[in-house]
Amino acid sequence: MTVVLKLGGSVVTEKARDETVAGDRLADLAETVADSGVDDLVVVHGGGSFGHPHAAEHGVSSTAGTSDAAAVRDIAAAMEDLNEAVVGALADAGVPAVPVHPFSAGFRDEDGKLHLPTGQVAAMLEEDFVPVLHGDVLTTAGDGATIVSGDDLVVSLADGVGADRVGLCSTVSGVLDTDGHVVPEITAFEDAADALGESDATDVTGGMAAKVRALLDLGSPAFVFGPDALEDFLDGDDAGTRIHG
Amino acid sequence: MTVVLKLGGSVVTEKARDETVAGDRLADLAETVADSGVDDLVVVHGGGSFGHPHAAEHGVSSTAGTSDAAAVRDIAAAMEDLNEAVVGALADAGVPAVPVHPFSAGFRDEDGKLHLPTGQVAAMLEEDFVPVLHGDVLTTAGDGATIVSGDDLVVSLADGVGADRVGLCSTVSGVLDTDGHVVPEITAFEDAADALGESDATDVTGGMAAKVRALLDLGSPAFVFGPDALEDFLDGDDAGTRIHG
Repeated sequence: MTVVLKLGGSVVTEKARDETVAGDRLADLAETVADSGVDDLVVVHGGGSFGHPHAAEHGVSSTAGTSDAAAVRDIAAAMEDLNEAVVGALADAGVPAVPVHPFSAGFRDEDGKLHLPTGQVAAMLEEDFVPVLHGDVLTTAGDGATIVSGDDLVVSLADGVGADRVGLCSTVSGVLDTDGHVVPEITAFEDAADALGESDATDVTGGMAAKVRALLDLGSPAFVFGPDALEDFLDGDDAGTRIHG
Repeated sequence: MTVVLKLGGSVVTEKARDETVAGDRLADLAETVADSGVDDLVVVHGGGSFGHPHAAEHGVSSTAGTSDAAAVRDIAAAMEDLNEAVVGALADAGVPAVPVHPFSAGFRDEDGKLHLPTGQVAAMLEEDFVPVLHGDVLTTAGDGATIVSGDDLVVSLADGVGADRVGLCSTVSGVLDTDGHVVPEITAFEDAADALGESDATDVTGGMAAKVRALLDLGSPAFVFGPDALEDFLDGDDAGTRIHG
């Protein structure tokens, strides 16, 4: 069983406080990961209060680039710091976690397509390491460098390593309908269009609608859930919203 | 003009003192790089007193692997620290340097062949960044993780980015003959066999003989020189020993 697990930036950091790791929450999640019986696990985490303030300060987003090497270094360094904390928490819980920095591996081409080699990640899984990637700055043809989100990486990795299950653990319990209840299953975008309540045109920053569309295109089932459901997800049970196109 | 430049570990660190950057020497070299007119430059540095003590402590070499994720994290972290110092020195001199960590990008396969994707490096060059790689720990099929030397990376990068010139800057002034004089040119291994005085059998750690053999196989001329000749090399002049098969 190969699993790609995203830990949202709002889960692993205190989003309201600059460069602050959510230490207790992260330690709990790490214990849950350590206790799971997943054979091959890839972890991806978001930027939270590390990546986002630095990206905003330099005016960099997934679509707005920078040619300033100092900005690239600054964002990359902030994300390396957060990655060290996440890898460290997993290691403290007994997970054989190792760091993988997307800026060192991938790029976007002229058409905006993400190229993320995954041979190294597959090799790490084969050697029983748990690679831990993160949202990052990324060299982008014609645009200097832009931001690659954890969600973008999850989709690319799931394809690359042939994931059996994909999990997105954030602070919400799943995709919510207009009454605030978790939608149990989405098999087509129309199932959730009302609940998501967003058109593609208003969703350039990668909100839930774009996320659902990308997950529907995967070959494997994806789950969107909150921290309390991580154990269920890792046990192979349903958790939060099940998305499978 | 695309140039791959290796700065040896003995040049950028004080080899006799654990985890000590050779700050003044590094600053001088960075100024020389900043003043050069090279269009597309890739820098690689060795491990020196950062990588080697950690690798030795964990019993890891280019041929002896480890399956201990803690050892991998320890060596990778030491090399990230040195890389930050080298990138920082180049940045202080005005070079648009950005960090590239080989552990995040590459691996060795079952046959020991190095797989190092270079699409990201080519994209960085195209965006006028100066990627700075380094000797590192590297996931190795069947063997956990081993060490990849800066020299191995140079050969792989030179092919990958189509380098016009390759430079190896170390503390010696070139390939020396038995009288201690610099051999000006090597076009076949036999030219230097006496001087190198080593058979392949006694050269498993990647000494000068293995280095010369690998450089002879490149499509571009390579130069082995000391720090004083860096300016000549970057100016396109001959420096130290010219190796071209």
